[in-house]
Parts: sequence; structure tokens; C-alpha cells
Amino acid sequence: MAGQVENVEQILDKYIPPEELATVKRLLYGKELRKLEIPASAQVLAKEKDFELQGYGFDAKLESTRSPRVIRVGAIQNRIVEPTSAPIQEQREALHKRIGEMTEAAALCGVNILCFQEAWTMPFAFCTREKFPWCQFAESAEDGPTTKLLQGMAREHNMVIISSILERDELHGDVLANTAVVISNTGTVLGKSRKNHIPRTADFNESTYYMEGDTGHRVFQTQFGKIGINICYGRHHPLNWTMYGVNGAEIVFNPSATVATLSESFWPIEARCAAIANTYFTVAINRVGTEYFENEFTSGDGKPAHKDFGHFYGSSYVTGPDGSRTPALSRTRDGLLVTEMDLNLIRQVNDNWNFRMTQRLDMYAKEFTEAVKPDYKPPVVKEK
Amino acid sequence: MAGQVENVEQILDKYIPPEELATVKRLLYGKELRKLEIPASAQVLAKEKDFELQGYGFDAKLESTRSPRVIRVGAIQNRIVEPTSAPIQEQREALHKRIGEMTEAAALCGVNILCFQEAWTMPFAFCTREKFPWCQFAESAEDGPTTKLLQGMAREHNMVIISSILERDELHGDVLANTAVVISNTGTVLGKSRKNHIPRTADFNESTYYMEGDTGHRVFQTQFGKIGINICYGRHHPLNWTMYGVNGAEIVFNPSATVATLSESFWPIEARCAAIANTYFTVAINRVGTEYFENEFTSGDGKPAHKDFGHFYGSSYVTGPDGSRTPALSRTRDGLLVTEMDLNLIRQVNDNWNFRMTQRLDMYAKEFTEAVKPDYKPPVVKEK
Repeated sequence: MAGQVENVEQILDKYIPPEELATVKRLLYGKELRKLEIPASAQVLAKEKDFELQGYGFDAKLESTRSPRVIRVGAIQNRIVEPTSAPIQEQREALHKRIGEMTEAAALCGVNILCFQEAWTMPFAFCTREKFPWCQFAESAEDGPTTKLLQGMAREHNMVIISSILERDELHGDVLANTAVVISNTGTVLGKSRKNHIPRTADFNESTYYMEGDTGHRVFQTQFGKIGINICYGRHHPLNWTMYGVNGAEIVFNPSATVATLSESFWPIEARCAAIANTYFTVAINRVGTEYFENEFTSGDGKPAHKDFGHFYGSSYVTGPDGSRTPALSRTRDGLLVTEMDLNLIRQVNDNWNFRMTQRLDMYAKEFTEAVKPDYKPPVVKEK
Repeated sequence: MAGQVENVEQILDKYIPPEELATVKRLLYGKELRKLEIPASAQVLAKEKDFELQGYGFDAKLESTRSPRVIRVGAIQNRIVEPTSAPIQEQREALHKRIGEMTEAAALCGVNILCFQEAWTMPFAFCTREKFPWCQFAESAEDGPTTKLLQGMAREHNMVIISSILERDELHGDVLANTAVVISNTGTVLGKSRKNHIPRTADFNESTYYMEGDTGHRVFQTQFGKIGINICYGRHHPLNWTMYGVNGAEIVFNPSATVATLSESFWPIEARCAAIANTYFTVAINRVGTEYFENEFTSGDGKPAHKDFGHFYGSSYVTGPDGSRTPALSRTRDGLLVTEMDLNLIRQVNDNWNFRMTQRLDMYAKEFTEAVKPDYKPPVVKEK
């Protein structure tokens, strides 16, 4: 894409000599990860269908009393396919097809749990504050067309799929929600998890469409590990990450849609900090490309009306509980990131660093409970 | 120091051409900060006394109903001066002298609030697990020799000083604590704040010396702003950072002592994430150099006994509520980092991003309160 840098890693790789490059990467990212061997069939498919394909491995020590728990996780980032002016049905079908191709590659790579970006079946149209035609993208989490499609794919590939959609909740006021549907590798809908923190900033006018999630911090026990889903803006909220950890999540996915102006310099560090603080894996996924809309809109920043949201910079990455991380996918291209992880690493790091043991959750439960009372007086020390 | 890289920024600056360097820095650190003009007198002193001196400014928009609240904050990182085998009294006096010189430079730069590294009056001897002679470094927070010395300096320079020491609490069992003493610019001891989370990992054997802090998350109202102190290992704990923000802190200091093997790749991101999530300034300070001890000790990692703790890598830095940050001080040299900050930036960012408004503290108070009950059952969704 014209004028867009590919990513930081590529600039570092281009200019810095090997020895000093290794130092820079150690200081920025922690230990270097093992590169995963990607099957030729998947490589061919990625080339044919024009998406990036990268793979890395997180290893753990061999234990005497537990077998390794090695699984593969896939993260997919992509542009919308049709222009936003195409009929809603066509836009969605084109995305269904695209995700089908990329999921095929994930299956060839032996992926066990696959996650897509936030609201992957649609453009991120919330910037417009228009309800029509965008609300038509909303569908049932339990038996909408997207869920039905993915149930087949999950069964076919023996793969857990996390599908973040705009949900229509017909049972409860026919309202919308921002929801991740978790589909088991058996094809069953395991359940759903809603976005807990809703942005009201810049072009993220989502509070015009749906409320804060009411599904709490549930964790899904899949055949390949316990997972939680922290959608997009929730990654700015450390308590949100914490609660998924408290409930036993081993991998927390962060399907997102975020643009350069707001968040790009934090993107590489928020999900990574969460992995470190909570001793679990995090998978941060962001959409790609610039999306244009027919009607102009303003952004609450004094600037003239315009027709695009800014650049969604991709850069999806995975972090281990020891803080080591994969390089980022491209800032401009569709991509699939495959990571192999031995989940035994979680307990090994936890026993070593003790961040969970030393967490003092009881103290914070008490302090937060006090702090939310209307007559709370913070302990402020003043000079007499 | 032989074999030690100066820092990441210097490698980037050396090899990457200006235009791409600007992109790398934008993607890694956010917007570039204004360089502060450092008085010649301070520069001369820094050169004479062999320490690094850097200055940066965080600006805010001009408001109509509030005046700017511009203050200057200083962060000092330093090596120990005498060998650890010197008499305790001599070691402490040499550090008093060194800090005196560096504080002089801070005063020349107009610093209003100055903070030193963790346990700055002593080597970080907790790796040894020996009580003698190291416990002799402990002193009263209220009227020990270090506090008395700093009361004079605070008054003389009209400067708030945060002094992190090994405290001897004669009133309560004659036990030790890891404590930051806050001395007002009037010379009064405003109060103290103890380390809330105590490490038990690698050579950080501090739990052998003192317990988790019992001073909660108090905030000190100084003439120059409201401050909190999150000592060292507490930076791995997002709830700790959160509670200082809930109590109204505008700047949270993180005086630390940490070494490369454990933490170096997180150091640049934990205090920065905390600034973003809580919409305040953070000041992360780490000691410098390698400290050798007469008697050998082991590190619980299967490796042979040895006589040093590893390299304390300095790299002190400051982050604003918008996530922008200063470059780091050196990994090897003593240094003073001066930052000018308009505290109005805090409210401006908070109103814009709404991370505090969307925090849902009430939900977490309830969830954490449930989670710490002995019979808590996490909401785990399983296939039927």
C-alpha cells in the first residue's frame, strides 16, 4: 500500500548489522523464538491467494510428571474485500470466501485454535454513526449464517474457531452486541463472550450501537486449552486482562480493529504486558487496510469531514507468558500467523516469577470495593 | 562498562537513516518529545562529576479555564560508589555524597520533584540472604541519617524528594521494610509508602528480609502535584498501578533495582503501559552497574555459586498519559533525567480516550471479591 511502511522489524532488519540487531531484538522483544516449518502446500496457497504466512514456536522444558501440551494457534488479519458500497450480502459473502481460503492454509499448518479479527464479516462502519445499512451485518451468534458456515469448517478441520461478529440479540430487545462466538472443533457453538469495554473516542463511535458486554470473564474449556476473549478496546483495561487470568485462561485472544492515529505505538506493548502480568499467552489481531464510506463523517477533532477511518495497521502478534513475542505480521497485507505453543510454559513461568502468587487479589478486592462507594475518600497525605 | 551496550536508541540512531528512524521511533514510542534546554551550569557539573544529563518536555494544550500546571521532575540512577566490602558507614556516606552532587544538578535544572532508585543508600545485597552486615543499612524513615540529610537538601532546593530506603521500624517489632520516604519541599517528612509486592524469584530474595507493604496506595499531595510510589516489583502488578490512579495520583514513581536476565525486555513497556491505562505520568528508575559481594551465593537456577547479582541496566525513562515517552538513560552510566510536564495533559487525555470513564471498576470490585472466596468456581464453559 502506497506510503505505508511494512513494519518496524523490516526496517531494523534492513539497516542494523546482525550482532547489534540481535541485541536490539533481545532488548525490545526478549528471547528469539524458534521459526516454525510451514508445509509447502500452505506456502503455495498463501502465495496464490496473496497473503503473508509466518510461523513461530514457543517451547517449554520437558517435565517429569506432565506430558508436553503442544498446540497450534492461528491468527488471521485481513482487509475487507468488496467496497463498502456493495450490497451487504455481497460484502459478507466475499469475506466468507476470503476467510475460507485463509482458514484452509491454517488447517494445512495444523492449527488447533483459530481466531479472526474483530467484526470480521463487515467494514468497521461505526465511524459513520449511521444505522442503515450497517445494522444489516448483525446476525445471531447461535445460528446466524456466519456461525453456520464456521461450524462446518470447524468440524471439517477439527479446529476451534473464534469468530468476532456484530451480534443481533433477538431474544433480548433485538439489540446489537459486539460478540465473539466460540465454536468447538466438534462444530458445536460452545458459547459467546461480549466486549466488556466500549470505546467513545475519535471515530470509535461504538457506544452508539451497543452497550458494555454482560458476559463477564468466562473462559472456554476447549480440547486444546482454556481460552478467553478480550475484544479490542478491552486491551486498554488491565483489570479486564487480569480477570480472564483469574478465571484460568491459558490463552487470551484480542481480536481488534484499530487505527494508527489512536493506538499504534501501544499496540505492540499492551497485549504483551498482559501476557507477562498474567502469565498466559496473548494473541493480538488487528484488521488491515483503509476503509472508505460513501457518506462523509466527522471525528470530533475539529478537522473537516472525510470518508475514511484511517489506516488499520494489522501487525498481529503473539506473546508468551515469559514475555517473548513473535514478530508482527505486515502493516498492509492480509496474513496468517501460526504459533506452536507448549502450554506447560505457563506453569513453568508462573512457578519461577511468582507474579500470580504475589498478586494480593484479596487486598485489591477490598480496596476497589471501598473505592466505588459514593462517599469514598482516597487516602491523600497532605502537609499539616 | 566493557561488553555492555549503551542502549537501544543509540543503535537505532547509529544505523537507521533519518526518515525511517522517525517512523521506527513513532511506532515504538509515540510522538517525539520536545528537548529541554539544560542550563550550562548543570551541564558543566554533569561533565565534571561524570554523569549523563538529559531533558525532555511533555506539553499540553492551553486551556481557557485552567492555567498550565508545568512542573519539573528529576530521576536519578547511579552505581554504588564504594566496594561492598567497605564499612557500611563509609558505603552510605559515599552514596550520600554522590547523590548530593547529582541533586545539585537537578536543582540547577529547576527540578521540583526528585526521585532516586530503590534502596539507594546501599548495594542490593538481598541476593546474598545474609543478614549481617547488610541489615545495618536499615534506618528510620522518620528520622534516620538519610532522611535528615535530605530534609536539608529539600528545604535548600525547594524540592520534593522521594527517597527509597531499607527501613528499620523500631516501633513495630524492630522489623525491616522496603520503604519510600516522601520529603516535602518545606523539609517536612510528608510520609512513607512501602513496597506492596515482594519478589521471590532469581536473586531477588527480598522476602527473606521484609514483608509485603501495609501502607496501601496512599497518594501524597505535594505543592507540585499528587504523587504515588510503586516500588520495583510492584510494576509487574497492574492492579497496583491501577489503585494509585484510583486514588488520584498524577505521577507514579517506580524506583527499582532490576537486572538484565529477569526483566530487561519488559522494562521499557510495563511503566509505559501503566501510564496509558491509568492516564497519568510514570517515572521508571533503575540502578546501574554490577555489584560484587565477598561471599558467594546461588540463584536457585542450578548454576554454580557466584559473587555478583548481574548487571543493573539503568535505562530510566518517563512516560506521559498519552503514551509518549522519553528515551532511556544509559545502561551503564550514572544519570539524571529531567522532564518538564504540564499536568493538564492528564485531564486532556482522560477526556479524549476515556480509559478511566470506561474502566468499570464496580464490576471488577464484585468479580475480585467473588474470586478470592475459598469456594470460588470460575465461569468455565465446557462442551456438554
